[in-house]
Amino acid sequence: MRIGWIGTGIMGGAMVARLLAAGHTCVVFSRTKGRAENLLAAGAVWADSPRRVAEACDVVFTMVGFPTDVEEVILNPETGVLRGFQETGAAGKMVVDMTTSRPSLAKRIFEAAAKIGVSSLDAPVSGGDVGAKNGTLSIMVGGTHETFEKLADVWEILGKTVQFQGAAGAGQHTKMVNQILIAGNMMGVCEALRYAKKAGLDTDTVLASVATGAAGSWSLSHLGPRILNGDFAPGFRIRHFVKDLRIALEEADAMELDLPGTTLAKRLYELLQDSGHGDDGTQALYLGVTSTESPARA
Amino acid sequence: MRIGWIGTGIMGGAMVARLLAAGHTCVVFSRTKGRAENLLAAGAVWADSPRRVAEACDVVFTMVGFPTDVEEVILNPETGVLRGFQETGAAGKMVVDMTTSRPSLAKRIFEAAAKIGVSSLDAPVSGGDVGAKNGTLSIMVGGTHETFEKLADVWEILGKTVQFQGAAGAGQHTKMVNQILIAGNMMGVCEALRYAKKAGLDTDTVLASVATGAAGSWSLSHLGPRILNGDFAPGFRIRHFVKDLRIALEEADAMELDLPGTTLAKRLYELLQDSGHGDDGTQALYLGVTSTESPARA
Repeated sequence: MRIGWIGTGIMGGAMVARLLAAGHTCVVFSRTKGRAENLLAAGAVWADSPRRVAEACDVVFTMVGFPTDVEEVILNPETGVLRGFQETGAAGKMVVDMTTSRPSLAKRIFEAAAKIGVSSLDAPVSGGDVGAKNGTLSIMVGGTHETFEKLADVWEILGKTVQFQGAAGAGQHTKMVNQILIAGNMMGVCEALRYAKKAGLDTDTVLASVATGAAGSWSLSHLGPRILNGDFAPGFRIRHFVKDLRIALEEADAMELDLPGTTLAKRLYELLQDSGHGDDGTQALYLGVTSTESPARA
Repeated sequence: MRIGWIGTGIMGGAMVARLLAAGHTCVVFSRTKGRAENLLAAGAVWADSPRRVAEACDVVFTMVGFPTDVEEVILNPETGVLRGFQETGAAGKMVVDMTTSRPSLAKRIFEAAAKIGVSSLDAPVSGGDVGAKNGTLSIMVGGTHETFEKLADVWEILGKTVQFQGAAGAGQHTKMVNQILIAGNMMGVCEALRYAKKAGLDTDTVLASVATGAAGSWSLSHLGPRILNGDFAPGFRIRHFVKDLRIALEEADAMELDLPGTTLAKRLYELLQDSGHGDDGTQALYLGVTSTESPARA
């Protein structure tokens, strides 16, 4: 199986490196070629566009930034993946978008692909750069179960928890569930730690009391200590989280579903982003949560 | 050490039962005597008021409902615990409030007790009725470390994670941190599961994808499945949680700390309580989170 990969940033790059290490051939394209240099040195083959990648491959994975990027690299009629597949006989080929993107776009891609005999999956991940490096990602997959099963070898290399979630878009919807959960957890963690600091408590002792019981969460155990050390470097960037929460809330709106907590979290993160914290990690909500007017005053 | 106990509801009753089983003598009082019957059958001794309990004991624990109840049973000049201690020689005696109550009240009790030579601790718990029964509570203690250490035998019987948190009020403040965390987690869990349902996902498969990763929490793992089974019976009642969040936000206000997420959670839970869900478990936020106008329409 000739594998193509579009988008070799922190996540995509680490995933391609795993595929290469497992003996797969990878044809890659990235908007910034410099980002692929280490992969090319490790045996990846460069192609000049998503279309050129697709022309050389049986399956193309995309891991790019925003839904508009996904749309561009897969659907652009001149330079996109589907166009590349058409050039070389599309039937039976596969495109897998691993970007966190719109469920509605995943459905649109699925339909456009189906028209030319290509199978499409939406397969966003969670687990961050560490999960990408170690192959311990959670991968949430929508599309058809048949296509999902064809890629079992790849899932094995990239992920630890790989779940087929249902029809096209179901992977993206599941990722939205994941992000809604994190939004709530992060508000709780950041407000709780601010309260603890302000009340003059010993935060290490507080964590010893609360982290392993009913108030516990991954966010508290993993990001709480970073916050208390003043470490706001990104595991996951605020500007990406804002993108995800916007998608979640647009989808919720379309389903006539009101999510007041998620709405608030999005607003707080947007304020942080607007005040220059877009490239901080999501735990920087701690800095801004004191006031909705002045998020960065802390 | 003669132990007194005031408040023998679900939590207090289970804790007294453990003390009795460990061979301690307990003198008990509860507003509703019927609630103490099983304890009396197991060897507890009844007293007719908090004052009478204190007259017979070296240390008195209180586990009642609201801060006003705490104030009444400890500080009432005619019938309260401190009055009882005074009748029989107060010096060296101890009062320990395990109710989730106001940090500021804990400080006031500490000072009133100190004036007559009595040591006071605030020692709220988390871990619910199961933790109370099994002696696996998290106990968060404020006061003096010396008094905390004198009660090591009791902590051993009642708790698994027992932490001295600092001066009077620090135990209550730590419990507020715990409740702020839970407020965020519960908003995330309930909104995420509503989204999953509305999007038509298979919620069991979704939980398999999200529960063990970065979106994971105790609330998701323990209350998520109950929600999906339509089980809104109380582990922890909404009306008690509303009380706790009101205390947390009053304390935050007094510290000039803005907690927007916790403020929203309190409002959502108040709306649920106002619409008849006060005795449901906190996971019933799932029912009401669709709209801030109409929390119970689901």
